[in-house]
This record gives sequence, structure tokens and C-alpha cells, in this order.
Amino acid sequence: MTRSSGSTPSASSDVRPIGRVESPLVDRASAPRQGDEGSPEAWLVFEPEVRDGLRDLRAGTDVLLLTWLDRSRRDVLVVRPRGDTNRPPTGVFSTRSPDRPNPIGLHRVHLLEIDDLRIRVSDLEALDGTPILDVKPVLDRDTER
Amino acid sequence: MTRSSGSTPSASSDVRPIGRVESPLVDRASAPRQGDEGSPEAWLVFEPEVRDGLRDLRAGTDVLLLTWLDRSRRDVLVVRPRGDTNRPPTGVFSTRSPDRPNPIGLHRVHLLEIDDLRIRVSDLEALDGTPILDVKPVLDRDTER
Repeated sequence: MTRSSGSTPSASSDVRPIGRVESPLVDRASAPRQGDEGSPEAWLVFEPEVRDGLRDLRAGTDVLLLTWLDRSRRDVLVVRPRGDTNRPPTGVFSTRSPDRPNPIGLHRVHLLEIDDLRIRVSDLEALDGTPILDVKPVLDRDTER
Repeated sequence: MTRSSGSTPSASSDVRPIGRVESPLVDRASAPRQGDEGSPEAWLVFEPEVRDGLRDLRAGTDVLLLTWLDRSRRDVLVVRPRGDTNRPPTGVFSTRSPDRPNPIGLHRVHLLEIDDLRIRVSDLEALDGTPILDVKPVLDRDTER
């Protein structure tokens, strides 16, 4: 595809996994609902095709990880936060429920170890096999929004 | 769809716009590359189908907005940050380039005004017509990751 001024390529709208999570978390019933409740370490295992995109990641730093929560329901608009039936029903866009129209997970993770296409991270609440969509620098309120 | 213990529904992997951005930014050449360089106000215009999910959003708060950067290239793995040819080529996963395998935009925005399905926000770097995928609470390092 060539780029010229005024060209407006239209990206297809399917998400394509660039890797998968390897985690001891295997089902939603046993997964903690928030990272601070104690999520385990996990490995991010990337596809060889995206190796060049990974080359500037460094162990010891934090990044934002975007995943596709493929065991979610997409027809849910109102939930009870953390599944607590004592809490009032809340619009999903005010919650971090995995059930939502586009089930994209957003996780701040610490990179512990990088071994080519495998990256070990701390505190990731994502089930084993969850597709990885993207990695981004953390948002820094002072320098970018 | 029913949920039972052990069920693992598999979400289809197409993103479905829940709304669109209305912005004076109409092409990438004129768009600022980072919010702090001065992005304009914009309106988020949601589909009627997701109205229930919006009901707990409040003007005066910040949220994370996820978009599908539909005029991006998906075959790019290395970029020069901000297009500056004096800067070294960098793996896209260490940058906020819109060109990346899954072109998901992540924007922290301030909600200025809510009028049913239309929400006015400050400082959004997203082109007019950009599909909206999700809205989430801001990440708070102290209480959740």
C-alpha cells in the first residue's frame, strides 16, 4: 500500500492476535477480578511476525498491554461491579467488566524478563490463551494524554 | 446465551463501532501527534444500542476512550517517533504510532458535557469519523492495574 497526501486507507476491522498469554489462570471463576487482589506472573508469547516491533521493550519497565477477552459476552451493557449482587447495577462503560461490546482488556504490567519472543510479566489478570492485541507505552499525564 | 460454570464462549474477533468521533480534525497531516500539542474538543456520538452502558458516565470526570484508528497501516512494525527522521527507528510497541498491527487508539479524555448519546470531550487527538470501541474508567495505580 502506498501513502500519499490525502490517501485514507481504511483498516479492516478484525483484530489479529500478535501473541497469546501463558498463565496459570484457566477460567474466570478462579481469576481475581482486579490485579491488586493478587494476579500471578504470566508469559506473553509473541508471534515471530511482530519481532521487529518488540525490539525496544526493556525489562524493568511498565507497559500497557491490550488483550482480546475472548471468553467474554458482548451483549452486556449493565453489570454489578465485581459480580457483587449488593452493589447497584452499573453501565459497563463505567466499569472494567470483561463483558462489554468490544471486550478489549487493558492491563498495566511490569516487564520482568525478555527472552526473544517471550516476555515474563508480573500481576496480569488474563486467562491462559488470551489473545494479545497490542503493547503501548504507559500513559503519562504530564507529557501526553 | 446462557452462562454456566465451565462454559467458555468464544467472542468473535471483529470490532464493532459503538459510536463515532465528531472532530474538526479531518486528516492525519493536520492532526497534532500528541494531545499536549493541543488537540481540539470533540463530540463522541454513541449508537442508541449502547445507551444503557453509558448511564453512569458523569461530566467533569476523566475516562479512557478506545478507538479504532481506521486510517492506519497495519503492516508497520518500526517507526520514527512523531515522524521525525532525525530520531532513530523504534519498534511500534514502544511508541504511540497509529500505524501498528491492531490500530487501537487509547486516549485519556475529560468529559465536558453529556447530552444523551452525545458527549463533548476536551483534547482528543482522533480524526473525524473515527470509530469508538470502548470507554473505561481511568487506570488508578493505587487501586487497580
